[in-house]
Amino acid sequence: MFTSARNQLSGKVSAIQRGAVNDEVEITLPDGQQVVAVVTHSSTESLGLKPGVDAFALIKASWIILLTDTAGIRLSARNQLSGTVEKVTPGAVNAEVTLKLASGDLIAAIVTNESITNLGLKAGVAASAAFKASSVIVGVKA
Amino acid sequence: MFTSARNQLSGKVSAIQRGAVNDEVEITLPDGQQVVAVVTHSSTESLGLKPGVDAFALIKASWIILLTDTAGIRLSARNQLSGTVEKVTPGAVNAEVTLKLASGDLIAAIVTNESITNLGLKAGVAASAAFKASSVIVGVKA
Amino acid sequence: MFTSARNQLSGKVSAIQRGAVNDEVEITLPDGQQVVAVVTHSSTESLGLKPGVDAFALIKASWIILLTDTAGIRLSARNQLSGTVEKVTPGAVNAEVTLKLASGDLIAAIVTNESITNLGLKAGVAASAAFKASSVIVGVKA
Repeated sequence: MFTSARNQLSGKVSAIQRGAVNDEVEITLPDGQQVVAVVTHSSTESLGLKPGVDAFALIKASWIILLTDTAGIRLSARNQLSGTVEKVTPGAVNAEVTLKLASGDLIAAIVTNESITNLGLKAGVAASAAFKASSVIVGVKA
Repeated sequence: MFTSARNQLSGKVSAIQRGAVNDEVEITLPDGQQVVAVVTHSSTESLGLKPGVDAFALIKASWIILLTDTAGIRLSARNQLSGTVEKVTPGAVNAEVTLKLASGDLIAAIVTNESITNLGLKAGVAASAAFKASSVIVGVKA
Repeated sequence: MFTSARNQLSGKVSAIQRGAVNDEVEITLPDGQQVVAVVTHSSTESLGLKPGVDAFALIKASWIILLTDTAGIRLSARNQLSGTVEKVTPGAVNAEVTLKLASGDLIAAIVTNESITNLGLKAGVAASAAFKASSVIVGVKA
């Protein structure tokens, strides 16, 4: 399988909360971390999502916000993964940041160059990747 | 009308599924393809959306994921349009990919350069553009 | 607090509309403008969001669509802030546009270079920033 989504995390569906139009799907990764996705209810049904099913979460690099100091604030973004900056690749306007999680997984995020400067992002800095449950695409093997 | 959303697809509302906060709006394009949008219920009401109404879907280029091999996987992204890569414009970090659909419509997507390499994206390659229903903005003429 | 989200607007929660999975949260800014966010209901509860609570809205620059001519159209995007282009920084594929609102607040948006040309975006041009309620991340101080 090949997609342009730089972040593809595999795990098992661990919970589903039903809604009228949208459902909330929780995927537990092998290291115990959880990714929460909001998908339309018809997707839950057509993909056969239910607890125990193997599934993966796709998160595009541009949908991720990076945080360097989370002390004292709480965000509505359901997904927040902590790690250490591995690499920063600056461009003309945007930069790509690679974050290494404790599990060893790498997360790619695209942020503006100004944010790189403002946050002091560089290799070795502790940072978190936050993304909304509604940004996550869920996939299953057919 | 002028917006920075590179993808603007016009059609007619063909179905609406009501929810408490969000509604799911289906727009059928002239070539029979459908685009599904999730919008807040108050937008459905203020725009007067109902079956038969002319409407358009706005999808920003950075909200699109490209897939080159969909065999064997299924995604929760409700919108998946198939086509052929027309052009790739690489930048320092991101690249712009133009996809030509069977209908002749062009879809622009922004992905990272690394995805261009990983997926082997270049003119002539078959690819699909996937985007979530929650990414789609619906518009009507006043 | 440090995040890579270029747009951070502070205000007070002025209304909450409950749903089964998602809630709609309205934040009123000091100048009277409102930002609407859709967050999962569990976030509303864990953040203690209710009318009167201080909160801020985070909107990433790449989640914003710019409009230069809104006469004659209406969009489902719940958030539309009007202003004047302050600065355009072009890159290889994307450009960063800074919009100054009547309140004096600055909004940063990332759009493709082609949109800069199509819309004729340059300092002094009137433009609006549109973004979906589902794109907004809500935060509170702990």
